[in-house]
Amino acid sequence: MTPTHLERLIQLLAKLPGLGPRSARRAALHLLRKRESLMQPLAAALTEAADKVRGCSVCGNLDTVDPCGLCQDSRRDGTILCVVEEVADLWALERTGAFKGRYHVLGGVLSALDGVGPDQLAIDPLVARAGTDGVKEVILAMGATVDGQTTAHYIADRLGQLGLSVTRLAHGVPVGGELDYLDDGTLAAALRARRPL
Amino acid sequence: MTPTHLERLIQLLAKLPGLGPRSARRAALHLLRKRESLMQPLAAALTEAADKVRGCSVCGNLDTVDPCGLCQDSRRDGTILCVVEEVADLWALERTGAFKGRYHVLGGVLSALDGVGPDQLAIDPLVARAGTDGVKEVILAMGATVDGQTTAHYIADRLGQLGLSVTRLAHGVPVGGELDYLDDGTLAAALRARRPL
Repeated sequence: MTPTHLERLIQLLAKLPGLGPRSARRAALHLLRKRESLMQPLAAALTEAADKVRGCSVCGNLDTVDPCGLCQDSRRDGTILCVVEEVADLWALERTGAFKGRYHVLGGVLSALDGVGPDQLAIDPLVARAGTDGVKEVILAMGATVDGQTTAHYIADRLGQLGLSVTRLAHGVPVGGELDYLDDGTLAAALRARRPL
Repeated sequence: MTPTHLERLIQLLAKLPGLGPRSARRAALHLLRKRESLMQPLAAALTEAADKVRGCSVCGNLDTVDPCGLCQDSRRDGTILCVVEEVADLWALERTGAFKGRYHVLGGVLSALDGVGPDQLAIDPLVARAGTDGVKEVILAMGATVDGQTTAHYIADRLGQLGLSVTRLAHGVPVGGELDYLDDGTLAAALRARRPL
């Protein structure tokens, strides 16, 4: 029905997270309408990024240089290490502008269900880094999921002998959030962690 | 924060319909994880489709050949012409396998609000085609929207002098649809167009 070149493009687009077969078809038609302004630049950007963007051998961030820009930035505080699950989490923290230390990307979380053990994650490199780089604090910024917290506890155990300060992100009411719509677990955690005003 | 090559890729991905900034970031990371199996093939498919896929000079369909595969297919019935708004609608009809005639893609609908007049759509070519190709019936398969129906009526007027049979798609209860969830307009149309069982 649809010509082969288009079919192939649609099949590949449909593999992107957030796009299904229908939205992939819409995207393909949109691209063909914007050949010069979007389709060709996107093809070039994909080729270039596939070619040039690599994982940082120090922290696991993605960048065109290795070590990555964040690891090379001498203004960042090397005594604080923030451990995240994925590069997306690193980006989210960077967007806040609230953290000026260095990062360590695990590449996932421990998961018995998915068969992810400590060897599949960058935990050994983290322990090595935490022991050598003059690191004083390790922030475990995993998600507040069962697997995320399991991973955090496992890493905290592994870091136990190093005499570092090991912290985690605060749980509580999201800024802008209404109590009425919060789940009980978060509300209870926010209550327990209440602070003087 | 995010490196420039990645930022550019994310910005371009975010321009696809169905993807916003957040899902574009997820898509970019997903692509970088599947460099060989998805990212490079997608770049190649985009380049190839941008290069080879063109609008058919007869019907407006997209294909790598001109006239398109459907127009060249001698098994299709040249006496029935199905007029659709966009190529996506043509694909939708083709997926049903229920139509074996030929198509004509308008490239949109008349819209006073968006400043789309008859000259912006392939209406003149349609009238010319309907008058010469031994066409006996024109099916106006526009969407059941105000603009779609306005366009259908305008085209029916233009085709009036040619002595053709001009039809439109039936309105009614969607197959698998429950009456309770249907809007009043559709239900009323289905009632008016009731047929003997």
